Amino acid sequence: MVILGIDPGLATMGYGVIETDGIRHKLIQYGALITQPKQAMPQRLRSIFIGVNQLMDLYNPQEVAMEELFFSKNVTTGIAVGMARGAALVAVAQRTEEIYEYTPMQIKQAVTGQGKADKHQVQMMVRALLGIREVPKPDDAADALAVAITHAHSRGARALFKIQ
Amino acid sequence: MVILGIDPGLATMGYGVIETDGIRHKLIQYGALITQPKQAMPQRLRSIFIGVNQLMDLYNPQEVAMEELFFSKNVTTGIAVGMARGAALVAVAQRTEEIYEYTPMQIKQAVTGQGKADKHQVQMMVRALLGIREVPKPDDAADALAVAITHAHSRGARALFKIQ
Repeated sequence: MVILGIDPGLATMGYGVIETDGIRHKLIQYGALITQPKQAMPQRLRSIFIGVNQLMDLYNPQEVAMEELFFSKNVTTGIAVGMARGAALVAVAQRTEEIYEYTPMQIKQAVTGQGKADKHQVQMMVRALLGIREVPKPDDAADALAVAITHAHSRGARALFKIQ
Repeated sequence: MVILGIDPGLATMGYGVIETDGIRHKLIQYGALITQPKQAMPQRLRSIFIGVNQLMDLYNPQEVAMEELFFSKNVTTGIAVGMARGAALVAVAQRTEEIYEYTPMQIKQAVTGQGKADKHQVQMMVRALLGIREVPKPDDAADALAVAITHAHSRGARALFKIQ
Protein backbone atom coordinates (compact mmCIF):
# COMPACT_ATOMS: atom_id res chain seq x y z
CA MET A 1 0.00 0.00 0.00
CA VAL A 2 1.31 3.42 -1.00
CA ILE A 3 0.68 6.38 1.32
CA LEU A 4 1.21 10.04 0.46
CA GLY A 5 1.89 12.31 3.43
CA ILE A 6 1.42 16.07 3.10
CA ASP A 7 2.53 18.87 5.41
CA PRO A 8 0.45 21.76 4.06
CA GLY A 9 1.88 25.23 3.64
CA LEU A 10 1.61 28.08 1.15
CA ALA A 11 5.29 28.85 0.50
CA THR A 12 6.50 25.28 1.13
CA MET A 13 4.28 22.19 1.03
CA GLY A 14 6.20 19.11 2.11
CA TYR A 15 5.33 15.70 0.71
CA GLY A 16 6.52 12.20 1.38
CA VAL A 17 5.58 8.92 -0.28
CA ILE A 18 6.08 5.56 1.45
CA GLU A 19 5.16 1.99 0.74
CA THR A 20 4.12 -0.01 3.78
CA ASP A 21 2.82 -3.38 4.86
CA GLY A 22 1.72 -1.82 8.16
CA ILE A 23 4.90 -2.81 9.98
CA ARG A 24 7.80 -2.06 7.68
CA HIS A 25 7.95 1.06 5.57
CA LYS A 26 9.94 1.83 2.48
CA LEU A 27 10.74 5.32 1.30
CA ILE A 28 9.62 6.02 -2.24
CA GLN A 29 10.07 9.77 -2.56
CA TYR A 30 10.01 13.03 -0.68
CA GLY A 31 10.26 16.71 -1.52
CA ALA A 32 8.45 20.01 -1.37
CA LEU A 33 6.22 22.09 -3.60
CA ILE A 34 7.45 25.67 -3.49
CA THR A 35 5.49 28.78 -4.43
CA GLN A 36 6.92 32.28 -4.71
CA PRO A 37 5.56 35.08 -2.52
CA LYS A 38 5.89 37.48 -5.46
CA GLN A 39 3.28 35.52 -7.38
CA ALA A 40 -0.41 36.40 -7.07
CA MET A 41 -2.35 34.19 -4.66
CA PRO A 42 -4.55 32.50 -7.32
CA GLN A 43 -1.41 31.46 -9.21
CA ARG A 44 0.24 30.11 -6.07
CA LEU A 45 -2.84 28.06 -5.27
CA ARG A 46 -3.00 26.85 -8.85
CA SER A 47 0.65 25.70 -8.62
CA ILE A 48 -0.17 23.74 -5.47
CA PHE A 49 -3.26 22.21 -7.08
CA ILE A 50 -1.29 21.18 -10.17
CA GLY A 51 1.63 19.92 -8.06
CA VAL A 52 -0.56 17.72 -5.86
CA ASN A 53 -2.35 16.43 -8.95
CA GLN A 54 1.04 15.44 -10.38
CA LEU A 55 1.95 13.64 -7.14
CA MET A 56 -1.33 11.73 -7.33
CA ASP A 57 -0.60 10.82 -10.97
CA LEU A 58 2.98 9.82 -10.33
CA TYR A 59 2.63 7.74 -7.15
CA ASN A 60 -1.04 6.82 -7.26
CA PRO A 61 -1.33 6.56 -3.44
CA GLN A 62 -4.26 4.56 -2.10
CA GLU A 63 -4.45 6.74 0.99
CA VAL A 64 -3.38 10.26 1.86
CA ALA A 65 -2.45 11.61 5.29
CA MET A 66 -2.25 15.31 6.13
CA GLU A 67 -1.07 17.21 9.14
CA GLU A 68 -3.99 19.03 10.70
CA LEU A 69 -3.74 22.76 11.04
CA PHE A 70 -3.45 24.37 14.40
CA PHE A 71 -2.86 28.02 14.83
CA SER A 72 -3.44 30.10 17.84
CA LYS A 73 -1.45 33.22 17.12
CA ASN A 74 -1.74 34.61 13.65
CA VAL A 75 -5.08 34.70 11.86
CA THR A 76 -3.63 36.01 8.59
CA THR A 77 -1.18 33.12 8.42
CA GLY A 78 -4.03 30.76 9.29
CA ILE A 79 -6.06 31.99 6.32
CA ALA A 80 -3.10 31.69 3.94
CA VAL A 81 -2.25 28.16 5.05
CA GLY A 82 -5.96 27.34 4.98
CA MET A 83 -6.12 28.38 1.33
CA ALA A 84 -3.05 26.30 0.46
CA ARG A 85 -4.53 23.35 2.29
CA GLY A 86 -7.85 23.83 0.48
CA ALA A 87 -6.08 23.77 -2.89
CA ALA A 88 -4.21 20.56 -1.95
CA LEU A 89 -7.30 18.87 -0.49
CA VAL A 90 -9.34 19.55 -3.63
CA ALA A 91 -6.65 17.89 -5.75
CA VAL A 92 -6.59 14.84 -3.47
CA ALA A 93 -10.38 14.63 -3.07
CA GLN A 94 -10.79 14.37 -6.85
CA ARG A 95 -9.01 11.00 -6.73
CA THR A 96 -9.72 9.40 -3.39
CA GLU A 97 -11.93 9.69 -0.34
CA GLU A 98 -9.23 8.05 1.75
CA ILE A 99 -7.91 11.23 3.33
CA TYR A 100 -6.84 11.21 6.97
CA GLU A 101 -5.76 13.97 9.29
CA TYR A 102 -3.44 13.84 12.27
CA THR A 103 -2.58 16.48 14.81
CA PRO A 104 1.07 17.35 15.48
CA MET A 105 0.77 15.59 18.85
CA GLN A 106 -0.59 12.40 17.28
CA ILE A 107 2.29 12.44 14.82
CA LYS A 108 4.93 12.86 17.52
CA GLN A 109 3.29 10.13 19.59
CA ALA A 110 3.11 7.71 16.66
CA VAL A 111 6.64 8.30 15.41
CA THR A 112 8.62 8.69 18.63
CA GLY A 113 6.33 7.24 21.29
CA GLN A 114 5.95 10.57 23.04
CA GLY A 115 3.57 13.40 22.22
CA LYS A 116 6.00 16.08 23.35
CA ALA A 117 9.00 15.03 21.26
CA ASP A 118 10.92 17.86 19.58
CA LYS A 119 11.46 18.30 15.84
CA HIS A 120 14.92 16.71 16.00
CA GLN A 121 13.64 13.52 17.68
CA VAL A 122 10.89 13.19 15.07
CA GLN A 123 13.41 13.58 12.25
CA MET A 124 15.77 10.97 13.74
CA MET A 125 12.92 8.48 14.05
CA VAL A 126 11.71 9.14 10.49
CA ARG A 127 15.24 8.41 9.30
CA ALA A 128 15.48 5.24 11.39
CA LEU A 129 12.01 3.92 10.51
CA LEU A 130 12.66 4.36 6.80
CA GLY A 131 16.21 3.01 7.01
CA ILE A 132 17.74 5.98 5.24
CA ARG A 133 21.04 7.75 5.89
CA GLU A 134 20.20 11.42 5.79
CA VAL A 135 17.44 13.35 7.50
CA PRO A 136 15.06 14.38 4.70
CA LYS A 137 15.23 18.08 3.84
CA PRO A 138 13.49 20.48 3.94
CA ASP A 139 11.89 20.01 7.37
CA ASP A 140 8.47 20.10 5.71
CA ALA A 141 9.37 16.94 3.75
CA ALA A 142 10.46 15.19 6.97
CA ASP A 143 7.16 16.25 8.55
CA ALA A 144 5.25 14.89 5.56
CA LEU A 145 7.02 11.53 5.89
CA ALA A 146 6.22 11.57 9.63
CA VAL A 147 2.50 11.96 8.95
CA ALA A 148 2.65 9.19 6.32
CA ILE A 149 4.31 6.87 8.87
CA THR A 150 1.73 7.89 11.49
CA HIS A 151 -1.02 6.84 9.12
CA ALA A 152 0.73 3.56 8.32
CA HIS A 153 0.87 2.79 12.06
CA SER A 154 -2.70 3.67 12.78
CA ARG A 155 -4.31 2.04 9.77
CA GLY A 156 -5.25 -0.99 11.85
CA ALA A 157 -7.25 1.05 14.33
CA ARG A 158 -8.64 3.19 11.52
CA ALA A 159 -9.91 0.12 9.72
CA LEU A 160 -11.95 -0.76 12.79
CA PHE A 161 -13.15 2.75 13.55
CA LYS A 162 -13.11 4.85 10.45
CA ILE A 163 -12.59 8.39 11.59
CA GLN A 164 -12.48 11.25 9.16
CA MET B 1 -18.59 41.91 -20.19
CA VAL B 2 -19.73 39.28 -17.71
CA ILE B 3 -18.46 39.45 -14.13
CA LEU B 4 -18.79 36.73 -11.50
CA GLY B 5 -18.76 37.93 -7.90
CA ILE B 6 -18.02 35.50 -5.07
CA ASP B 7 -18.47 35.88 -1.34
CA PRO B 8 -16.38 32.98 -0.06
CA GLY B 9 -17.56 30.78 2.80
CA LEU B 10 -17.46 27.12 3.75
CA ALA B 11 -21.11 26.48 4.62
CA THR B 12 -22.51 29.12 2.24
CA MET B 13 -20.63 30.57 -0.71
CA GLY B 14 -22.60 33.38 -2.33
CA TYR B 15 -22.30 34.09 -6.03
CA GLY B 16 -23.66 36.74 -8.35
CA VAL B 17 -23.31 37.14 -12.09
CA ILE B 18 -23.82 40.49 -13.82
CA GLU B 19 -23.36 41.85 -17.29
CA THR B 20 -22.01 45.39 -17.42
CA ASP B 21 -20.84 48.06 -19.83
CA GLY B 22 -19.07 49.78 -16.92
CA ILE B 23 -21.97 52.13 -16.20
CA ARG B 24 -25.14 50.06 -16.37
CA HIS B 25 -25.37 46.59 -14.93
CA LYS B 26 -27.77 43.79 -15.66
CA LEU B 27 -28.44 40.91 -13.31
CA ILE B 28 -27.87 37.52 -14.87
CA GLN B 29 -28.03 35.17 -11.88
CA TYR B 30 -27.35 34.87 -8.21
CA GLY B 31 -27.41 32.13 -5.62
CA ALA B 32 -25.32 30.22 -3.11
CA LEU B 33 -23.31 27.02 -3.01
CA ILE B 34 -24.18 25.20 0.20
CA THR B 35 -22.13 22.49 1.91
CA GLN B 36 -23.27 20.43 4.86
CA PRO B 37 -21.32 20.51 8.13
CA LYS B 38 -21.92 16.77 8.54
CA GLN B 39 -19.85 16.07 5.43
CA ALA B 40 -16.11 15.51 5.71
CA MET B 41 -14.00 18.57 4.89
CA PRO B 42 -12.44 17.14 1.70
CA GLN B 43 -15.92 16.45 0.32
CA ARG B 44 -17.15 19.94 1.23
CA LEU B 45 -14.16 21.48 -0.55
CA ARG B 46 -14.71 19.22 -3.52
CA SER B 47 -18.36 20.37 -3.73
CA ILE B 48 -17.20 23.99 -3.76
CA PHE B 49 -14.58 23.25 -6.40
CA ILE B 50 -17.13 21.50 -8.61
CA GLY B 51 -19.75 24.18 -8.00
CA VAL B 52 -17.42 27.03 -8.96
CA ASN B 53 -16.30 25.07 -12.02
CA GLN B 54 -19.96 24.77 -13.04
CA LEU B 55 -20.48 28.51 -12.58
CA MET B 56 -17.45 29.15 -14.81
CA ASP B 57 -18.87 26.76 -17.44
CA LEU B 58 -22.36 28.16 -17.31
CA TYR B 59 -21.68 31.90 -17.32
CA ASN B 60 -18.18 32.04 -18.75
CA PRO B 61 -17.27 35.27 -16.92
CA GLN B 62 -14.33 37.25 -18.32
CA GLU B 63 -13.44 38.51 -14.86
CA VAL B 64 -14.03 37.33 -11.32
CA ALA B 65 -14.25 39.47 -8.18
CA MET B 66 -13.99 38.08 -4.66
CA GLU B 67 -14.47 39.57 -1.26
CA GLU B 68 -11.17 39.58 0.60
CA LEU B 69 -11.04 37.75 3.90
CA PHE B 70 -10.62 39.61 7.11
CA PHE B 71 -10.80 37.93 10.44
CA SER B 72 -9.58 39.15 13.71
CA LYS B 73 -11.37 36.97 16.19
CA ASN B 74 -11.49 33.31 15.40
CA VAL B 75 -8.48 31.52 13.91
CA THR B 76 -10.34 28.23 13.43
CA THR B 77 -13.03 29.97 11.38
CA GLY B 78 -10.30 31.75 9.44
CA ILE B 79 -8.68 28.44 8.48
CA ALA B 80 -12.03 26.93 7.43
CA VAL B 81 -12.99 29.91 5.29
CA GLY B 82 -9.44 30.00 3.94
CA MET B 83 -9.81 26.40 2.78
CA ALA B 84 -13.14 27.15 1.11
CA ARG B 85 -11.65 30.19 -0.55
CA GLY B 86 -8.66 28.13 -1.72
CA ALA B 87 -10.97 25.57 -3.32
CA ALA B 88 -12.92 28.31 -5.11
CA LEU B 89 -9.80 30.19 -6.22
CA VAL B 90 -8.28 27.05 -7.71
CA ALA B 91 -11.41 26.49 -9.80
CA VAL B 92 -11.36 30.09 -11.03
CA ALA B 93 -7.60 30.21 -11.63
CA GLN B 94 -7.85 27.22 -13.97
CA ARG B 95 -9.87 29.38 -16.37
CA THR B 96 -8.78 32.97 -15.98
CA GLU B 97 -6.05 35.10 -14.43
CA GLU B 98 -8.51 37.98 -14.18
CA ILE B 99 -9.27 37.60 -10.49
CA TYR B 100 -9.70 40.68 -8.34
CA GLU B 101 -10.12 41.12 -4.62
CA TYR B 102 -11.91 43.84 -2.70
CA THR B 103 -12.09 44.50 1.00
CA PRO B 104 -15.47 44.88 2.71
CA MET B 105 -14.78 48.61 3.06
CA GLN B 106 -13.99 49.02 -0.65
CA ILE B 107 -17.23 47.24 -1.49
CA LYS B 108 -19.33 49.44 0.79
CA GLN B 109 -17.63 52.53 -0.59
CA ALA B 110 -18.17 51.50 -4.22
CA VAL B 111 -21.78 50.44 -3.82
CA THR B 112 -23.16 53.04 -1.40
CA GLY B 113 -20.58 55.83 -1.53
CA GLN B 114 -19.63 55.35 2.12
CA GLY B 115 -17.16 52.86 3.58
CA LYS B 116 -19.13 52.48 6.79
CA ALA B 117 -22.51 51.64 5.29
CA ASP B 118 -24.42 48.83 7.00
CA LYS B 119 -25.55 45.57 5.41
CA HIS B 120 -29.06 46.90 4.78
CA GLN B 121 -27.81 49.97 2.88
CA VAL B 122 -25.57 47.78 0.72
CA GLN B 123 -28.48 45.46 -0.09
CA MET B 124 -30.78 48.36 -1.00
CA MET B 125 -28.16 49.78 -3.37
CA VAL B 126 -27.52 46.38 -4.96
CA ARG B 127 -31.24 46.13 -5.63
CA ALA B 128 -31.41 49.67 -7.05
CA LEU B 129 -28.27 49.39 -9.18
CA LEU B 130 -29.47 46.15 -10.76
CA GLY B 131 -33.04 47.40 -11.14
CA ILE B 132 -34.59 44.40 -9.42
CA ARG B 133 -37.56 44.21 -7.07
CA GLU B 134 -36.43 41.98 -4.27
CA VAL B 135 -33.27 42.05 -2.19
CA PRO B 136 -31.29 38.96 -3.27
CA LYS B 137 -31.28 36.17 -0.69
CA PRO B 138 -29.32 34.76 1.03
CA ASP B 139 -27.22 37.70 2.27
CA ASP B 140 -24.14 35.98 0.83
CA ALA B 141 -25.63 36.24 -2.67
CA ALA B 142 -26.32 39.97 -2.17
CA ASP B 143 -22.71 40.37 -0.98
CA ALA B 144 -21.46 38.51 -4.05
CA LEU B 145 -23.45 40.85 -6.32
CA ALA B 146 -22.04 43.82 -4.39
CA VAL B 147 -18.46 42.70 -5.06
CA ALA B 148 -19.30 42.12 -8.75
CA ILE B 149 -20.71 45.69 -8.96
CA THR B 150 -17.64 47.03 -7.14
CA HIS B 151 -15.44 45.43 -9.75
CA ALA B 152 -17.58 46.79 -12.59
CA HIS B 153 -17.17 50.31 -11.14
CA SER B 154 -13.47 50.09 -10.63
CA ARG B 155 -12.54 48.39 -13.90
CA GLY B 156 -11.57 51.74 -15.42
CA ALA B 157 -9.00 52.45 -12.73
CA ARG B 158 -7.91 48.82 -12.73
CA ALA B 159 -7.26 48.94 -16.45
CA LEU B 160 -4.83 51.80 -15.84
CA PHE B 161 -3.18 50.35 -12.75
CA LYS B 162 -3.53 46.62 -12.71
CA ILE B 163 -3.53 45.61 -9.07
CA GLN B 164 -3.72 42.02 -8.00
